[in-house]
Amino acid sequence: MAGPATYFNPDNTSGLDAATRDLVERRSRVLGSAYRLFYDDPVQLVRGEGTKVYDVNGVEYLDAYNNVPSVGHAHPRVTAAMTKQAGLLTTHTRYLSEGIVSYAEDLLSTLPESIDNIMFTCTGSEANDLALRIAKLVTGAEGVIVSLNAYHGVTTEIAAISPSLGGIESVAEWARVVRAPGTEVDFGEAVEAAVSELEAFGIRPAALIVDTVFASDGVYPEVPGLARAVKAVRKAGGLVIADEVQPGFGRLGHGMWGFERYGIVPDLVTVGKPMGNGQPIAAVMAPHGLIDRFNERSRYFNTFGGSSVSIAAAQATLDVLRDEGLIENAREVGAYLLSSLQATGLFTEVRGAGLFIGAQLESADRAIKAVNDLRERRVLLSASGLGNDSLKIRPPLPFSRADADRLLTELEYVLR
Amino acid sequence: MAGPATYFNPDNTSGLDAATRDLVERRSRVLGSAYRLFYDDPVQLVRGEGTKVYDVNGVEYLDAYNNVPSVGHAHPRVTAAMTKQAGLLTTHTRYLSEGIVSYAEDLLSTLPESIDNIMFTCTGSEANDLALRIAKLVTGAEGVIVSLNAYHGVTTEIAAISPSLGGIESVAEWARVVRAPGTEVDFGEAVEAAVSELEAFGIRPAALIVDTVFASDGVYPEVPGLARAVKAVRKAGGLVIADEVQPGFGRLGHGMWGFERYGIVPDLVTVGKPMGNGQPIAAVMAPHGLIDRFNERSRYFNTFGGSSVSIAAAQATLDVLRDEGLIENAREVGAYLLSSLQATGLFTEVRGAGLFIGAQLESADRAIKAVNDLRERRVLLSASGLGNDSLKIRPPLPFSRADADRLLTELEYVLR
Repeated sequence: MAGPATYFNPDNTSGLDAATRDLVERRSRVLGSAYRLFYDDPVQLVRGEGTKVYDVNGVEYLDAYNNVPSVGHAHPRVTAAMTKQAGLLTTHTRYLSEGIVSYAEDLLSTLPESIDNIMFTCTGSEANDLALRIAKLVTGAEGVIVSLNAYHGVTTEIAAISPSLGGIESVAEWARVVRAPGTEVDFGEAVEAAVSELEAFGIRPAALIVDTVFASDGVYPEVPGLARAVKAVRKAGGLVIADEVQPGFGRLGHGMWGFERYGIVPDLVTVGKPMGNGQPIAAVMAPHGLIDRFNERSRYFNTFGGSSVSIAAAQATLDVLRDEGLIENAREVGAYLLSSLQATGLFTEVRGAGLFIGAQLESADRAIKAVNDLRERRVLLSASGLGNDSLKIRPPLPFSRADADRLLTELEYVLR
Repeated sequence: MAGPATYFNPDNTSGLDAATRDLVERRSRVLGSAYRLFYDDPVQLVRGEGTKVYDVNGVEYLDAYNNVPSVGHAHPRVTAAMTKQAGLLTTHTRYLSEGIVSYAEDLLSTLPESIDNIMFTCTGSEANDLALRIAKLVTGAEGVIVSLNAYHGVTTEIAAISPSLGGIESVAEWARVVRAPGTEVDFGEAVEAAVSELEAFGIRPAALIVDTVFASDGVYPEVPGLARAVKAVRKAGGLVIADEVQPGFGRLGHGMWGFERYGIVPDLVTVGKPMGNGQPIAAVMAPHGLIDRFNERSRYFNTFGGSSVSIAAAQATLDVLRDEGLIENAREVGAYLLSSLQATGLFTEVRGAGLFIGAQLESADRAIKAVNDLRERRVLLSASGLGNDSLKIRPPLPFSRADADRLLTELEYVLR
């Protein structure tokens, strides 16, 4: 569980300038205690461009953290597409529209042929909630297997399979948590054991759900035994949900999807965060046979899911991803950054693929201090992992070699 | 449950022109069987302005149905606000931002003083899911009471308290459904009985959740006994959630919120659909004491919830609602429309408040035929209610007296 220590402590506003303190206090009064701010010294961002963001005083920061504005902050093509569509019409999917159909065709063409249907939602949480609902309804089972520090979202159902939110005790009685990433245990073996344990309690597995880069577990792009895990769950009648909300859309630098790295074809694929470069759009994709069986016994309509402006943003984002060669950039700059980080000798381990890197330090304290020190050096990132001891490096995809060098320089400065 | 008969039958494309048939077929292939289209002859809308929408051939329609573009289709002030913000920055709530704080202050000022915290989500489903999660966690109870044909959303948890989706058999074992709106039964009495029945099964009530206009029950703006129901649930330790996703933001023509009509103060208020005039934004509002108790034992973060562009859209929508006097318009035009509909003598009952009207006919068949005939006469609306026999009239709020006259003329034409 990403500890609270990377967050601002709202009881300690003494170090802030008057204007920031005033805004922080007003914010606490209306947004309440559930909202958190990054950093001991919160940042008030007002503008962004590419991989740079600017605060209220015009100070520039390098963004090495935000995966949502994936093709770059305030990308003009995405803004233009949204503006054009918002000026025409925003409506739901019960009227015909060319845009949603052509985007669906375009996106599905990047997936294995068997995955031929898409259902739109607004958030990754909603997508995972719907995917799990489909899996449970179609299999008639209710068991779910997730990784030890998994995060899949915040609906009631999905929070109950997200131990990173509230610890293992918060996980539903029909879910089982497996330890694998970063341990000696083979993931396939761990999942086989979880299937057996579920069955010992009389619970049949409905689904294994995996974030294919294991982001909240600390970024593990190569987990041994994933293909074996898939086999074990299917043998027991369960389905496999690839949660591509974080790794998807080319971030890992090889193709569009994290599951491709394992040579597996999931039953359901969920996507979200970078899909509309900030616009709230997400989706579930699956073979039509699964969707048909779900639809025989249930209904689903999401008022804002696939609405016109969101589709326009998503299409523009996908176009830019291809036209600007951002997957290739993620591969090349990511490989350079990964090897450079390893070469510094400052980390106990550096793991990653493309522009998704976990750089592990000796302790959470050291990681959290580094995060705050980097913010003072105008570089934004965060910490991750079960022990909260890994720096999470996950920048917008136009991150250049010069951006990587700046990050490396500042990392060396704060860690030495 | 709104029957499928108001929807297009995808197996019957023979009556469509070639271009429409082609798009419908491509759509079915990629969006799959869960997606539905309105009308026997689906409409392909491409542009809107105020209360008018235009199809791909430039044909104009009067929109008497869509509550999401509440201040009017493609309102230029909302588009301008979104465009400006999208060109600057779209980011989440873990950086400081003036916009979200001032919008929160502005919106909360329209609610009773005790409701002083807001948490942003992207959809009404997410808002109701979070509200129920808070209610269950804070009360330590799990019972939920809803109306007979309630619709509160589509997450796994909320679908389980939405009998309009899958019938009473789809409702969770910890939920109870009460029959009241439109029957002889007093709602308070019905809820008291439901509390007793829950307790007989050893289930304590966590919440009564009501759409304060009972939209999916057929539009009932004045349900006797609601205040008594609130009292009964509180006496049993439960909380009251006012689902203002449909009635909220002035649609009922008297103040901002449906619950105000009953002189009650809910524990939690959820809002959504019209909040950003089409932008996916929704929220839960509650006293800070409840939020604090939730936060002691849980966490909540929604990546897109309260993101910069969504807040900009919501602020512009709220500004327009006030500046253009749309609540007053809803009251005046709504009252005129309601009395005119009643005066036609064509309906078995006409119920409504402001611009939310249910006009009941003798049968579902007659209602569904009217909906399709009106579409041919270039007027868009839909059907609602347990028997699917009520026309649901719920236009954008700038609906003028001339719009009302046009609707009345066409209604008389198709119903006589």
